[in-house]
Amino acid sequence: MSPAKNNLPDRESGTQLMPKFNANGLVTAVVSESASGRPLMVAHMNEAALELSISSGEAHFFSRSRNQIWHKGGTSGNVLSIDDMWVDCDQDAVWLSVTAHGHGAACHTGQKSCFFRRIVAKEGLATLEPTGEAPLFDPKKVYGS
Amino acid sequence: MSPAKNNLPDRESGTQLMPKFNANGLVTAVVSESASGRPLMVAHMNEAALELSISSGEAHFFSRSRNQIWHKGGTSGNVLSIDDMWVDCDQDAVWLSVTAHGHGAACHTGQKSCFFRRIVAKEGLATLEPTGEAPLFDPKKVYGS
Repeated sequence: MSPAKNNLPDRESGTQLMPKFNANGLVTAVVSESASGRPLMVAHMNEAALELSISSGEAHFFSRSRNQIWHKGGTSGNVLSIDDMWVDCDQDAVWLSVTAHGHGAACHTGQKSCFFRRIVAKEGLATLEPTGEAPLFDPKKVYGS
Repeated sequence: MSPAKNNLPDRESGTQLMPKFNANGLVTAVVSESASGRPLMVAHMNEAALELSISSGEAHFFSRSRNQIWHKGGTSGNVLSIDDMWVDCDQDAVWLSVTAHGHGAACHTGQKSCFFRRIVAKEGLATLEPTGEAPLFDPKKVYGS
């Protein structure tokens, strides 16, 4: 095969991890629960967070609000063990299949999943319908008020 | 309760859809397969794509490369029917649980899922391991060469 004119073929079909970081140096990181396939959360990773996640087997993200590496569960104990990890075709997103430890909750609100509200269309209007599950921890107790 | 000082409480706990679009007017849109919970793709939606997705029940995204609304499957026939749709705590991401029609493939490469390569750590290096599944369609035939 002739050499690629740009890096698209390698990135899309190759076996080399070549993350396509955005202008802020981030890729999208999606997290679902291994046991159920259930959506848990969406966050971002910079290069260091991605490397730490791969080397440690625990989810690390980049907190855009705190502008620093975020070891998920470092404060709450709700560490996410990575069971499986994939990258998408253009390598600007990674997907983590995880097991949640501690309270078993991924959301800072205490809910298991950040996706605790369903979008439903009612009479032409979109509204949110909570799943109604009880939170798995009290954020005030875990993070302080 | 006293009125919120900002819109965080409503956005995080309310039943009103208040998408937090980024500087480019987009939210992250994550797609998994209803039947299996399997990761399919990650894309973006602007306000119009989100409204079209909700009203039509078929996934619409905003194509950043083409700078236009993208009715997923409009060319390939691989329309994604939305079975369920959630928004996350801070409303900057939506999650779609879908059934793929046509070839049953979500990726432009012909693969069922854009996440067709597993990230594995081998001797301290991260490499990609293809799932090895055969593509479900030939992109050249579907999109032209």
